[in-house]
Order: sequence, then structure tokens, then C-alpha cells
Amino acid sequence: MNDHRVAARIAWGPLMSEAALCARDMGVLAALGAHGPLTPAEVKERTRVTTYAAHVLLEACSAMELARHELGRYSLTAAGRLFLSDTRTRVDADFVHDVCYRGAFHLREALEEERPAGLETFGSWATVYEGLTRLPEKAQKSWLAFDHFYSDAVFGSALEALGQAGVETVLDVGGNTGRFAVLAAKTMKVTLLDHAPQLELARENARRHEVSISTVPMNLLDHAKPFPTGFDAVWMCQLADCFPECDIVKLFSRARAALSDGGRLWVVEPLWERQPSDVARYCVQATSLYFACIANGTSRMYHSAQVLACGQAAGLELERDRRLGPFHTLLVFRPAGSAAARDPR
Amino acid sequence: MNDHRVAARIAWGPLMSEAALCARDMGVLAALGAHGPLTPAEVKERTRVTTYAAHVLLEACSAMELARHELGRYSLTAAGRLFLSDTRTRVDADFVHDVCYRGAFHLREALEEERPAGLETFGSWATVYEGLTRLPEKAQKSWLAFDHFYSDAVFGSALEALGQAGVETVLDVGGNTGRFAVLAAKTMKVTLLDHAPQLELARENARRHEVSISTVPMNLLDHAKPFPTGFDAVWMCQLADCFPECDIVKLFSRARAALSDGGRLWVVEPLWERQPSDVARYCVQATSLYFACIANGTSRMYHSAQVLACGQAAGLELERDRRLGPFHTLLVFRPAGSAAARDPR
Repeated sequence: MNDHRVAARIAWGPLMSEAALCARDMGVLAALGAHGPLTPAEVKERTRVTTYAAHVLLEACSAMELARHELGRYSLTAAGRLFLSDTRTRVDADFVHDVCYRGAFHLREALEEERPAGLETFGSWATVYEGLTRLPEKAQKSWLAFDHFYSDAVFGSALEALGQAGVETVLDVGGNTGRFAVLAAKTMKVTLLDHAPQLELARENARRHEVSISTVPMNLLDHAKPFPTGFDAVWMCQLADCFPECDIVKLFSRARAALSDGGRLWVVEPLWERQPSDVARYCVQATSLYFACIANGTSRMYHSAQVLACGQAAGLELERDRRLGPFHTLLVFRPAGSAAARDPR
Repeated sequence: MNDHRVAARIAWGPLMSEAALCARDMGVLAALGAHGPLTPAEVKERTRVTTYAAHVLLEACSAMELARHELGRYSLTAAGRLFLSDTRTRVDADFVHDVCYRGAFHLREALEEERPAGLETFGSWATVYEGLTRLPEKAQKSWLAFDHFYSDAVFGSALEALGQAGVETVLDVGGNTGRFAVLAAKTMKVTLLDHAPQLELARENARRHEVSISTVPMNLLDHAKPFPTGFDAVWMCQLADCFPECDIVKLFSRARAALSDGGRLWVVEPLWERQPSDVARYCVQATSLYFACIANGTSRMYHSAQVLACGQAAGLELERDRRLGPFHTLLVFRPAGSAAARDPR
């Protein structure tokens, strides 16, 4: 892209992104998609927007390349169709607007003080995880949709891999609302660690799915507290990115201590250098900004080298390294010096 | 640009734009520009940012194409250099961050209610113009820098054109802090109309420039109040875009009534369809969003057809239509049916 175009789109980004959301949520993009090309007056007729809003939004959308302007009429572009209908784009855009937008204004403060300065737009918690169940409904919904969209994409292949490795007992660390746990619980014995309010949702979830899970409430940052022990697998999916490297090393060490003989630490992360496209990498690296100003002020999306270094520092060695779903990498660690895997594929 | 890339950049725009500003203002881009390619650790050494901030900002900048990542080192791209040093980009980015960012969150409300819902982030005024002199210092500075950057670009050629047309008396409608008035006052008799607080700044400005100007305080929206009369030229530079079309017609009518025999209405606007590049058009159309959510909730940057229609409705006919500076168009109107210009060029 032309350099001036890159710079201008960054400078005006916040206003334009908000306009794109308005065009999506006020029916303008849908009207173009179903009936375009349309004049602003026709868009007004087919939606409930004013003539003024129709002009402003259509012109902004044409500038953003979500709409094409020709002879006074606007039609939806392929990018506009994605912004309207693509699930990932919608989940990302809602997450940015509902969870991150207002707090991102405090990014500099967050980076200077290594604390989630933008989280104050919601409440006075040390991390978003503490306040998750008390976020405003829309923010909570968008947060969960974002979390689930990315984690759900790996569950199928993850369960398959755990099954093939003969795993019978799993400790799901930071298992949140139990989406993975209730699936895994159909074939394995699952114990879930997380903040108490999330566990309540997880137990409800398990009841709905008619499976049994064990739950252990724990602030994962309390490194003096050991994990329960004796597991074939400790499972950490999108967990490392919620902590700075110093804490990851301690979590990995506690995980190592929780393993049964022959047990393994399973780490699943959307590593930024392993993304399938520059667009996917862009989204992952942007997510680090959410961690900086909203989630905790200290964590980010990692490069594989950083996660591997944490593993080594925690007395672990890498046994497997493979892609899992479209965006994630599965890293399986065993305690350093322990015997090779029962099923090393 | 690839469609997915367009959509992702819109979805994540607010977070990324804030990160770009942090990278600029915390010295990261300057360090890359002066000493790159640098590792995150080297950026930390050369700035005051933490290791964490260096990682997060460099990775975001590489995703945004402001920096290039190669073998663990980051260097500034041409777009990064623009974002760091180009005046227009800097003026725009500061304006968006300091004036528009927080209010843009309320764009939908603004469009639904046709009022500047985002202005409440600063105070409870009906329009930004009423509150301009009471904005927080940084917001006011960025507002004025933005306004001046664009209007200053036309003053030289405008004065030349007024001189060539033999204009001796000018009514500067919405002349703000008097930047044009103090220049024009060197060769013409200038009367300035605007809100009283802006006029105070304008008179101070005139004293500093040792010129004499007349000022008439007026809420321009009070259409029952006629303008003072007897002017060779009524001058409206970047004024029409501050009003909806119904008010423009009334302002144009009041302007017509203020003209001496042979007088003309001079309208200068950054018309969106006349911009020299798609980047310039993008910036102009984005500015409409500022009008929607911050300035007044009802105005926008116009297409020439809309301004010409307002002129016609106000009993005016177009006499001249020419480019003025890089972004603006000069439209000179005479009362319909009046004699041709003394100097029709």
C-alpha cells in the first residue's frame, strides 16, 4: 500500500473504524449488499438512518473501501461484505469496540506504568480476569465471543491429539467458562483451575452438558499455591499470553510439578510468527495491545522463541511442535531428562 | 489492498492507531529512524520505554507497516517516516487523538440524534465552536493546529485573487481567531463575524500584527440577525462545512444581502470529490465524522453539487470555480441576475 495511504489510515483510524461499525450496525452495509448500488436517499429509505447519516456513512465507507462510489450510487465491495458478514472480522470488531476502544485511549499510561490503565473504563480490578463476570453485558458478550472464536477453532484437533497420546486425566489451567472442559470431560477426567466466578459458570456449563468436572478455585498468580497433582496432561490453551514471561516460567514449573509419571504440559498459543498470513499476524499482534491496556498491562502474544525459553527455564524440554487449527501452535513439553513420549508423533 | 487486510485494519484500527501514537510520542519511531535496525532491547536502551513496551509497540508497528521486522531487528519504513515526520499526518493524528477519539465512541448516538454526542467528553455545549476557547489545552492546541494547517494553505492565493478582483472591503464570516483577517487587513478593510470569545483572540492577534480589524460578535445560526452590509466580498473559508445545507442556504442569503453593488460571495471549501488523491479524499471524508460526533452533529465535508445547490437556493449564481492551494476549491458567487464580474478570470 502507498505510504501516504498507510499513514493516513492510521491517523484517522479510530473515527473511521467507528463509522464502519455504525454502517454495519445501522443497516447501511446490509442495504447496499441486498439492494445496491443505492443513492444516499435510497439508503435512507431502506434503513432507519437520516439523510445526513446516509451521506456521512456512505462517504466514509467509500473512503475505507467498504463501498464503491460511482455516479452518486454506492455498492458493497468485497471488503465491505467481509466487514458485514465474516465471522472473524465481526468478532474482532465487536471485541475492539465493546471491550478495548475506550481503554485504548490510555495505552500510553498503561505502557509507562505496566498496568491495564484502560481497564478503569470498566472497574477497579487489577486484571480483566478478576472483573470478567462483572463487565457490562455487551462487553462481556464480546469478550467471550472473541475468546471462544479463537479457542473453539482448536478444540477438535486438540481432543484428538490428547486421545491419541492416551491422556486420561487433564488439569485445565485457566479453563475459564469450561468450554474445553465440558468437551474433554466426555472422554477424560478433567479438573479445572480458575477464578471462582468463572468456575461457577463452568460448573453450570458442565451441568448443561451433563458431564462431570472437578473445579479448584485459584488465583493463578499466587505462585506459592501448588497445582493439584497426578495428571497425564496439564492443558494451557491461550493461557501463556495472559501472563508476562516471569509468570509463565512459574506457571510452567507448577505445571511440571502437577504431572504424573509420563505426564506432559500441553501449551497452545497463537504465536505471532507462525500465523498463516500477514492479516492473521496483524490481528494477533493487535491483540497484544488489548493485553497492554485492558487485560493486565504485562502480557502479550508471543513469538515461539519466548515460549520455548520459558519452558527451558521451567525445567521442561520440547517434545512436539505442530500446528493446531488455523492460528494456533501446540507445544508439548516433558520434564527435562524424563523418558520419551509413549506415543511420539 | 487485499480485502481481508482492509477489513482487519478497520476492525483493529482504534487499538493500532493508539499504538502508533505511543510509538511516535514515546520515541520508538525516532529511535528506529536514527539508529535502526534495532532489537527491542536496543530500543529500550535508546528510549525510556520498558522491554515490554518495546516489544508490544515494535510488533504493532511492524503489523501496521510503520516498521519492518527482519531477524529480530526493526527498522523504520517510509510510512513510518511519514507518521513520524510528515506535518499533515502529525496534525491529523493529533487532532483525531486529542479532539475526536473519545467522542467517536458515541458516533452512533450522534448520527441517530443529529447532535454532537461525543462533545460531551469535553463539556455541555451545543457545538464545539461555543466551547472552543474552553477545551482542555491539548485539545484546543490540536484543534487550532488542524484548522490552521488546512486554512493557511489557501491564504496566499486567496489574497492574490481578492486583490486581482479589486476587493477593498471584506466581511470574514466565521473568521475564528483572525488568521486570515490579519493578513487581509494589510491591504483591505476587514470585518470579522464570529462567537465573542473567538473575536477576543482575533483582536489580540490583530494587535500583535499591528493591523486594524472590525469585529461583530454573532451566533451565525441566528438567521434573524442580518450581517453588516456594503462589502465587496463576503468571505467564507471552511465555513459551509460547519453547517447543514439548510443553514448554508440561509448564511448564503444573508451574505448576498451584505454585498455592495458588484460584490461577490467567496466560498472556499475542501470539496471531497475535488481532492488531488484518494488519500486526500480519505482525510476529507474522515473529517465529516468529526463534524458528526464532535463539532455539531449536522454538517460535513461537501461535494461541489451540494454547495452549488445551496448557492442557487440562496439566489446566487456561480461566477468562478477554481482550485485554491492543494486541497481547496474557490467558488465565487454573484447575486442571480446581476452584472458580470469586473474582472471575470
